[in-house]
Amino acid sequence: MSKIQPRTLSGFMELLPAPQQQMEHIMAILRETYSLYGFTPLDTPLIEASEVLLAKGGGETEKQIYRFQKGDSDLSLRFDLTVPLAKYVALHYGELAFPFRRYQIGKVYRGERAQRGRFREFYQADIDIIGDGKLDISNEAEIPAIIYQTFSRLGLKHFCIRVNNRKILNGFYEMLGLSEKAGDIMRTVDKLDKIGPEKVKDLLVSEEIGVSEENAGEILRFIAITGDNTAVLSALEQYRGKCETFDQGLDELGTVVKYLAAFGVPQDHFAVDLTIARGLDYYTGTVYETTMLNHPEIGSVCSGGRYDNLAEYYTDKQLPGVGISIGLTRLFYVLNEQKMLNDQMNTAPADVLILPMTEDLTPAVALATRLRAAGVRTQLYGEQKKFKAKMNYADKIGVPYVVFLGEDEISQNLVACKDMVTGEQTKLSFEDTLQRIQEGLKEKNQGAVILD
Amino acid sequence: MSKIQPRTLSGFMELLPAPQQQMEHIMAILRETYSLYGFTPLDTPLIEASEVLLAKGGGETEKQIYRFQKGDSDLSLRFDLTVPLAKYVALHYGELAFPFRRYQIGKVYRGERAQRGRFREFYQADIDIIGDGKLDISNEAEIPAIIYQTFSRLGLKHFCIRVNNRKILNGFYEMLGLSEKAGDIMRTVDKLDKIGPEKVKDLLVSEEIGVSEENAGEILRFIAITGDNTAVLSALEQYRGKCETFDQGLDELGTVVKYLAAFGVPQDHFAVDLTIARGLDYYTGTVYETTMLNHPEIGSVCSGGRYDNLAEYYTDKQLPGVGISIGLTRLFYVLNEQKMLNDQMNTAPADVLILPMTEDLTPAVALATRLRAAGVRTQLYGEQKKFKAKMNYADKIGVPYVVFLGEDEISQNLVACKDMVTGEQTKLSFEDTLQRIQEGLKEKNQGAVILD
Repeated sequence: MSKIQPRTLSGFMELLPAPQQQMEHIMAILRETYSLYGFTPLDTPLIEASEVLLAKGGGETEKQIYRFQKGDSDLSLRFDLTVPLAKYVALHYGELAFPFRRYQIGKVYRGERAQRGRFREFYQADIDIIGDGKLDISNEAEIPAIIYQTFSRLGLKHFCIRVNNRKILNGFYEMLGLSEKAGDIMRTVDKLDKIGPEKVKDLLVSEEIGVSEENAGEILRFIAITGDNTAVLSALEQYRGKCETFDQGLDELGTVVKYLAAFGVPQDHFAVDLTIARGLDYYTGTVYETTMLNHPEIGSVCSGGRYDNLAEYYTDKQLPGVGISIGLTRLFYVLNEQKMLNDQMNTAPADVLILPMTEDLTPAVALATRLRAAGVRTQLYGEQKKFKAKMNYADKIGVPYVVFLGEDEISQNLVACKDMVTGEQTKLSFEDTLQRIQEGLKEKNQGAVILD
Repeated sequence: MSKIQPRTLSGFMELLPAPQQQMEHIMAILRETYSLYGFTPLDTPLIEASEVLLAKGGGETEKQIYRFQKGDSDLSLRFDLTVPLAKYVALHYGELAFPFRRYQIGKVYRGERAQRGRFREFYQADIDIIGDGKLDISNEAEIPAIIYQTFSRLGLKHFCIRVNNRKILNGFYEMLGLSEKAGDIMRTVDKLDKIGPEKVKDLLVSEEIGVSEENAGEILRFIAITGDNTAVLSALEQYRGKCETFDQGLDELGTVVKYLAAFGVPQDHFAVDLTIARGLDYYTGTVYETTMLNHPEIGSVCSGGRYDNLAEYYTDKQLPGVGISIGLTRLFYVLNEQKMLNDQMNTAPADVLILPMTEDLTPAVALATRLRAAGVRTQLYGEQKKFKAKMNYADKIGVPYVVFLGEDEISQNLVACKDMVTGEQTKLSFEDTLQRIQEGLKEKNQGAVILD
């Protein structure tokens, strides 16, 4: 029979078993942490009607979308988890309680040009809190705590949650009479880290943007405000009283900073950063970016912010919200590239591999059943192979413990067990073997999935 | 602004938060149980190149598939998890250890005509064990244990794993000289439960199938062999010695039955059933179906079997395997229809809702942080609403405990806590409140997700 060459599409991540275990571990931590903060899991279809998904229309999105016809239906694959959330909340509005807190970890699709580290199918891990009409600022203050907790549990140590408030930015540019140019200015300021203040100023006064020399100076003075949170907040006080939007933003930022300690976020993992704007137009309050201190080149690994109107394309209801998103597939790719994934982690499909040394497998089967009843992930190797081939298999899957069961052990009612890391072998009762394995696993499973 | 009517495509399941929690719970149990038996999780793309996915070609599948063009690429959404597994194993053959045990819980797509209880997007939850060249019969014997454990952990009590062996069937029809008609015969015999033995016989001797009167009698006598496992096996012994395939099948079935007890499968959850064939041509050994005793109309909720050649369209390597699949979305739908989902289950997004009674939220935030540090899923309600609205929210999300924190409690260093089921309210220290909540949750979270 002629064969078809098996292949996986480029831009689609398909992991081998060991890294897949690491990925599952990361997802489990995300689910657990999001749940700890009172978010409920959602799962929406990958396919939506195109008119629904593209209600907002236009832009980069529409070019990248996977859109197709099936029968009479014009269908599209979701390109983010925000539009499906908007649809969900508008559609099920009457059956939800607000503030509605949901998390969703799911695949999204963008037909970008394939290149290293760019994916066409990738996981996003989102949380959002949606209010009905109003949403208290305390929700915005809680977000850094969730980011901090999530990344800490993953094992990251050197990261900083950078926070700003769009009202402060909008207010500031309003003061300078630059509201209409604010978008262009923010996009330029965003390049500060890459090109430095001189070039930012050049761009601001260029014909294209057209900010006056004086205003450009004001802008650079403004974004040069740095220091610890108290210092930045107190420096911002000099602008108070000139613009209502600005004052409101400053109050909100003050509230976010005020609750930080009570939310358990250490000062050194948080910074007010006036250069952060987030490109998207729909952010209206607090905005967040999270950078890895030793890998600034990666950019933000968790971003989001406050928005005033989640579902305006579907409903007249005012649904403000705040949310953040982790680009999980890309994060995983980068962590792997940077050798930051813990390769000492137990990624074996089982904790114990039983190698039966008798023809009748009944005693080995019974042993597997007992180990599983005690919660130990157990694999029974029933293949008729030479001993060496069996041990090769154990090595290849990286199983922490191998248990041998021959006539001797069975007649003595003992279990032979080898620790595959230390090489140490014991011959003990079932109970003692189980205890040794369970204690060993507790130690072996201690390490975090990310090393930072 | 003109609005787009939000809607979810028909044939696509989109759950409200409470049933979604039940679904997540079911998935968590599947992951946990599959892991216990040494299966490693896999995640493959939803989109594959059409030539790869449709390598086998033809049939019902091709009509139902979601297939589309993106740029120059002819793409398709996967319609099961078996073909992607075949591709995966063929593609990554050199990097895998065999027997390769994987589980995958993922969405698949079939553009069937939409009707009640039929889904176009649905979850399958599959496990497979793939051998390299050979695969020991002990793997086939292990499958009923995994099915039993999985369904028991979900809370199902009244179910039966029905097992047969295709070699017995093929051998039997070979003895009668009916090998060429075996497919038609098996499809007819499959209707036994629905139409009864008389009508099965009528169909068998009909012109279309064309079995002789005598052979039809033999077939009916054969499928009438019932009773406990020992009885069926001993009745089958009468046919031994006439056909090698049959004898091999009988030996295999004997081995599967022999290990049952050691694998921890109670006799009353298992039955040898000679009428089971599984439609698909590629099953070659043990085949499985699982039926719910009080709901036979649902049909099999977990099926599968042994096959000899997983990836013949991609590779010359002989890759035999055994696998089972749960149609999770349909199962969930049916359980819900039958009111078998435990609606007493804790499906709230949080275990504790904190209602702050002071303007400064710092003490409430600190309390939330302490509860979360202790592993309690906590939501802080920061909205400026009347007390009644706050309690309405607590009722609507079904949170088990509400904690009140007013000036009194803060000054006394106490926490007021209400059990939302019993209505009992306490005012205790943080530690005592935490203990009460944790003990209460242990009790409240005891029930299984399915009531049977």
